[in-house]
Amino acid sequence: MEFKQEMKKRTAHIEGILDEYLPYPEGLQKTVLTAMNTTVRAGGKRLRPMLMEETYHMFGGTRKMIEPFMAAIEMIHTYSLIHDDLPALDNDDYRRGQKTCHIVYGEDMAILAGDALLNYAYETASKAFDMADGEEIFCVIEAMKILASKPGIYGMIGGQTADVELEGTPLSMEEILFIHKNKTSALIETCMMIGAVLAGADKEIVSQMELCGEAVGLAFQIQDDILDLIGDENEIGKPVGSDEKNHKVTYVTLKGLEQSKKDVQDISMKAVDILKQYDEEDGYLTSLVEFLIHRTY
Amino acid sequence: MEFKQEMKKRTAHIEGILDEYLPYPEGLQKTVLTAMNTTVRAGGKRLRPMLMEETYHMFGGTRKMIEPFMAAIEMIHTYSLIHDDLPALDNDDYRRGQKTCHIVYGEDMAILAGDALLNYAYETASKAFDMADGEEIFCVIEAMKILASKPGIYGMIGGQTADVELEGTPLSMEEILFIHKNKTSALIETCMMIGAVLAGADKEIVSQMELCGEAVGLAFQIQDDILDLIGDENEIGKPVGSDEKNHKVTYVTLKGLEQSKKDVQDISMKAVDILKQYDEEDGYLTSLVEFLIHRTY
Repeated sequence: MEFKQEMKKRTAHIEGILDEYLPYPEGLQKTVLTAMNTTVRAGGKRLRPMLMEETYHMFGGTRKMIEPFMAAIEMIHTYSLIHDDLPALDNDDYRRGQKTCHIVYGEDMAILAGDALLNYAYETASKAFDMADGEEIFCVIEAMKILASKPGIYGMIGGQTADVELEGTPLSMEEILFIHKNKTSALIETCMMIGAVLAGADKEIVSQMELCGEAVGLAFQIQDDILDLIGDENEIGKPVGSDEKNHKVTYVTLKGLEQSKKDVQDISMKAVDILKQYDEEDGYLTSLVEFLIHRTY
Repeated sequence: MEFKQEMKKRTAHIEGILDEYLPYPEGLQKTVLTAMNTTVRAGGKRLRPMLMEETYHMFGGTRKMIEPFMAAIEMIHTYSLIHDDLPALDNDDYRRGQKTCHIVYGEDMAILAGDALLNYAYETASKAFDMADGEEIFCVIEAMKILASKPGIYGMIGGQTADVELEGTPLSMEEILFIHKNKTSALIETCMMIGAVLAGADKEIVSQMELCGEAVGLAFQIQDDILDLIGDENEIGKPVGSDEKNHKVTYVTLKGLEQSKKDVQDISMKAVDILKQYDEEDGYLTSLVEFLIHRTY
């Protein structure tokens, strides 16, 4: 209970930062600016910026230059949802109970709002260059490189691409792992790596954060497949059994339910073991990762 | 004639650079990588990277770190065409006589290929950080900031947004100028500013290049409106009179043909006057700008 209250507080703190960095809707491009704003504000727990900020603090970071990167990662996450929901892709009219961007603003504006958010993520992150002193500039450069690669074609978009293209085919374990590690883990890795890099952590630690992020994303996705099979519909907020109904091959189909549960346990242990080496002060990041993986909804 | 031969040579040189920076189509994301590749390779004269490189040389730049930015701007230009051609936007099946991306690869892959190219533009440009020595790193940072802002919501995407949203309404001169200056000039400004910045030119010169790029884009677009009215269909390669047929209000509708011709002249003179202060060695950049504006096709 205490953890959830703490998380709520940190979510609110992050939303203040997003408010600061989102562009104000005005001028001739007002509709797209409004679409960008409302879709980013539509919510969620802000887990990605939270993971980034907590990792930053864990390695001793105290400066404001983490904030443009926190806003940027939420913009990238949001653009990917806007484009993912489009009729040509997942064709979803609702997300978290709210109408999706293209339903409210039209498909043309949703495509442009997605493009604009992706582009604005880099514009926003580049503001960190002006906040860096001396050698810190090299940390910002390194963080910018991670932000420009992991969400791209060799990361998140790559996973999304494979997911779309392989839909309806009997997936192999190799393909499932490729999709999970790129579509989901890549952005989590981005957050934890940037948090470490901006705090000035060395390469070895950044690699550890990459491994940790990968494990968190993978465990999260396997848990997602498990919940689709055995979750409580009321808790999850969406119908269960949809993977089975769609004859979708998932991690659980290939490994079986018991082994999958065991794997979630093992993989998340790996992530937690990495974190416990560093997360000594308040243990919040470790709790956050445990919460993420072991959620029942 | 000699100019056109020279241009052909420089176009080929740029295509060599693009080959070097485009990702190789392989792995589970092969389809989107192929879509990215073929659409960028589909052609044109590579005017944007050419403007960037020529500006760079004009201000004494001699290093390879311009190349990732040249590739990046062509990727950004191409992604904007891919998304622009989508059914929800311009709904074009052909561009330069070739089937558009979504016709060949499907709408889902075209959306993802556009996203991937925009993202990969930043990944590519960030390679310049590793090519910079000493203080040059600050030039790359400045160039990255320009690349992240001018093509975005306060630049190219902003113009594209206004163009889509105001379609079918009786445009005011203010609105037409907003669209031209953002949709077209912004990327040309990006090229000329980055060329100057990477060559180490001072702020005053970079502002001059911004003004020059704005003028080039604007004159180019007014000329486009003129050609739509009086051009030679065979030379242009597309039907003339389409603006009139669609009751589209253009610069020419509001200002009249003669005044518009005069304005193209005046605005391009402004651009050329700026360039002539610097372009003393071979005059190629000035010729390129004159060619761009005074083309008859």
